[in-house]
Order: sequence, then structure tokens, then C-alpha cells
Amino acid sequence: MNLIERPREMQECSLKLRREGRRIGLVPTMGFLHEGHAALIRRARTLADWCVVSVFVNPTQFGPHEDFTAYPRDPQRDAELCRACGADALFRPAAADMYTADHSVYVDERDLSAGLCGAFRPGHFRGVLTVVAKLFNLVQPDVAVFGQKDAQQARLIQRLVRDLNFPVHVVIEPTVREPDGLALSSRNAYLNADERRRALSLSQALRRAEALVREGERDAERLKAAMRPILEAAAPTEIQYLEIVNYQTLRPTPQVAGPTLIAVAVKFGKTRLIDNVIVGR
Amino acid sequence: MNLIERPREMQECSLKLRREGRRIGLVPTMGFLHEGHAALIRRARTLADWCVVSVFVNPTQFGPHEDFTAYPRDPQRDAELCRACGADALFRPAAADMYTADHSVYVDERDLSAGLCGAFRPGHFRGVLTVVAKLFNLVQPDVAVFGQKDAQQARLIQRLVRDLNFPVHVVIEPTVREPDGLALSSRNAYLNADERRRALSLSQALRRAEALVREGERDAERLKAAMRPILEAAAPTEIQYLEIVNYQTLRPTPQVAGPTLIAVAVKFGKTRLIDNVIVGR
Repeated sequence: MNLIERPREMQECSLKLRREGRRIGLVPTMGFLHEGHAALIRRARTLADWCVVSVFVNPTQFGPHEDFTAYPRDPQRDAELCRACGADALFRPAAADMYTADHSVYVDERDLSAGLCGAFRPGHFRGVLTVVAKLFNLVQPDVAVFGQKDAQQARLIQRLVRDLNFPVHVVIEPTVREPDGLALSSRNAYLNADERRRALSLSQALRRAEALVREGERDAERLKAAMRPILEAAAPTEIQYLEIVNYQTLRPTPQVAGPTLIAVAVKFGKTRLIDNVIVGR
Repeated sequence: MNLIERPREMQECSLKLRREGRRIGLVPTMGFLHEGHAALIRRARTLADWCVVSVFVNPTQFGPHEDFTAYPRDPQRDAELCRACGADALFRPAAADMYTADHSVYVDERDLSAGLCGAFRPGHFRGVLTVVAKLFNLVQPDVAVFGQKDAQQARLIQRLVRDLNFPVHVVIEPTVREPDGLALSSRNAYLNADERRRALSLSQALRRAEALVREGERDAERLKAAMRPILEAAAPTEIQYLEIVNYQTLRPTPQVAGPTLIAVAVKFGKTRLIDNVIVGR
């Protein structure tokens, strides 16, 4: 496995491989990799013949009071996981090589990014879309694989590709969970034992909603009314949102009709967790 | 020469040529081509072995009270000029194929775009950067050629490429002028005979500043004081700006020290004309 740290070297390598007709796969990550990332990398390997994992804790997608400096990092374990999953290259640029001091061009989205996490993390998706556009240009992927756990992000990446005409096929992989249902997340490392137990309330509430939809319930208010007590029983620090939205538009829908995203964001102490399911498809 | 109208066809064609190791050149235009564009196309031919001219009157770079619908168009003459200049392809997409009704991703710049034309045309450069990012992804150029006449735009395209890591070499070609000095522009077509004569004041004022710099003048206020009467003598409808800025930062500079842009924007009736020179390099 190649370790590539310089953006220019990454791009030269990718442009050469494209000229040779190789099909490049990209899994963009912020590192501290877990089995969820491993699933993305293994999927990318089936879709491409040269697979790059990028590890970059992107400063522009963190708000001023968010956890940029605290975000967990483990470069050596990340490299081992990438190698074990069969990645061909690990792209690990330095922040100073990705953003000059006078960086001034940003990619912004004005519709799908307004609600859900976007409402609570101003500037977050601008940072995500900007760095993903940069990574697409540096890695030149034919296919890029993202996780369904970040559902709004995944929809925004699809919109980025459509609206700016990136020649990239976006693949969204199902959320990987612990045996008890907790969605894998690098931020789970922040949880103490008590918070870890209470964090199960997110997946439990979502499974309850799924079960109700299977039984025929379509009314969004009734679904939310069934979920909210499950979240509240875990005594979260804050329920940021509990939303039922059309999966295409990400706008609230009164009824489950067609693909519908049920998404929650909950804080335990300073740790913000998100989870979601798609129903009605 | 190929005429390509579908974005998808353009991109498939370009990706195939890239795989074949061809070097692609792009000259993005809004059509109604003149000798200034011809110079860009001829330059692109020397830098690439497959040269695409795009003709697209981009709706997102026009303000609500600007001249989008009135903007001059002559598709047949444009095609003839492209052919005569040796272009290999003319890419002429329909607006509906470039922007879906729910288009929501934009490329924005926060520093170089604030002054000069950006101050008078809110949203203009967002539209320019968005469509150029789209064209870069559709045409996959190795090199793209822009005109110095739109000096701020040219600097912004360089910044776009640097900040989003597009693998594109940006070349800026000198402004082409009529024998009497008027900078070529598609918008010159709007001028009546009297306005055409008065429009010479832009290049005359700029030539006066150039001459003073050659003679040793470095003070921006004295240079502007020498230029302003020349512009005012032509009784313009409005002098939007007369600015002397550092060419790298596009910020006003009190002294000509290093590459310095002297730029003017003047209206005659409804017609807005811009022109510039670079001194001190």
C-alpha cells in the first residue's frame, strides 16, 4: 500500500492511472477508522481496480466551538486497517498543504443543506463539499463510497456531483452497527460507559419507527410521538432533532410516502451522535 | 469540427480522449465571438492537441436587472469563427441541460471577488465560478485560456484552480484591441456611433496611466487624478470604478509596487464597459 502525503503527488499519480485506463475508487474519511469504514473500503475494492482511502480531519467542516482539536486520531491503526482491507493507497495530506492561508474558494449548497444537521452546524456542509470537491480533483475517482450513517452528507455529495458535473459515481453503503444496534462512529470513542448505554436509544427509537411503518403506520407525527419517549428515557443532554423527511428533498413530510428518511441527532454531554433509517422504499 | 450539445456526450468524449493521452484545451466563452476570442482559440491550439470552444450564455452570472436576454447571440457566425481558428469541437449546451430546476450547488469566492466588478455585480462571480467548475468537469481540460480583458475573472479562475485543486493549467492572454484602442467585447455591439467614440476614453485613460508609470510616477492617487478627467470628458453615464490594485490580492494599493492592475468600469447609457492594464511587472 502506498502512503501519499503530498496533494500534488496524489494528483499526478491519479492522472497517470486514469491515462492507463485504471478505474479509481475513493473512500474519503476523517480517520480513526472502524468497521464502518472497513465496509466502505471493501465495497470500493469491488467497484474499482485502484482504491484510495483519504484520511484528513478537515478543519473547514468544524464550527468554532466544535471538536476539531479533540477529534480522535490514530494514524498507525488507520494505516493497518486500510492495508488489511486491501486499499492500494492511503492519502493523508497535511492541513497546510490542503488549505493555503489565503484560501478563499468554497463550494456551497442552498437547499438540501438547510435542515437536519445543517441547521445545527452552520458552515459544516460548506466545509464538507469544499473538501470533497478538492479530493475529487486530487484523486480523480471513477467511484466514491460514502456511508449512509451521514445521510444528509451522502445526499449532498450526490447533489455536488450532479450540479457540478463531477465524473464520479457515488455509492452509499448501509450503516454498520454494533451487535446491540449502536451505529459505528469515530465519535463513539468520546462516550463513557453510562453514555454508551444511553446512546442505544437512538437505534432503538429508529427500530421502533421501522417496525411501526412495517405494520402500516404512515403518519409522521405519530411515528415521532412513538420515538420521542424512547429518546427521552435515555435522559439525553439535548435532542437536537427528530425528523421525518422526504429522502429526495430532505424536507419534512407529513406522511411516509416513497423513500423517507427518519433521522435523529442527540447529545450526551458534549458528544453529538446521529443516526437514521430509510423507510418506504 | 464536432458540434456537441449534450453535457454527457461532451464529458464522455473528453474522458475518452484523456484515456488516449490527448491533451485537451478549453476556451470558455459566452459566444458572439470576436477577434479577442479568436486569439484565445489560436493560443489554445498551440497548447493542446484537442481544442474545445464552449459557447454558453450562463444565466447564473447575470443579475436580475442585467442583460441576459439581450446578450447578443450569433450561433452560426460563432461556429464559423471556431472552425476558421482550428477548434476541434464546439460545445454549445442548452441552459436546461446545464442547470436543473433544483440546482443548488454553487462555487463562491470570498476575497478576490469582493471589489472591482464584484462590488457592482452581486452574485456575478459566483455564477462565473460555478459554470467554469462545471465546464472543467465536463471538458476535462489540461489547459484553459481566458482573456486579460476580464482581469478580475481571470484572477478568480486561477484561485478556483488553486483552491479546489483542478488539474487545469490556466493561461491568460492579452486583451485584443481595435486599431484605435477600444478593447474588443461582445458588448461593444450595444454601442451607437456616438457612444463608440466616447468609449475610447477607457483605453485612453489607461494608456495615459501607463505612460506616467513609464515616466516614473508610482502614486496611485496622482495616477487616478490624471485618468479621471479623460474619462469624465467623454460624459459617461456612470464611472463605476477607477481602481489601482495589487494584481495578486486585488486590494487597493497606494503605490505601484510590483504587478499592479489599473482597472476601469464605465457605463454609456445601459452599456457597461470594462478595461484594464497591468503595470509594474
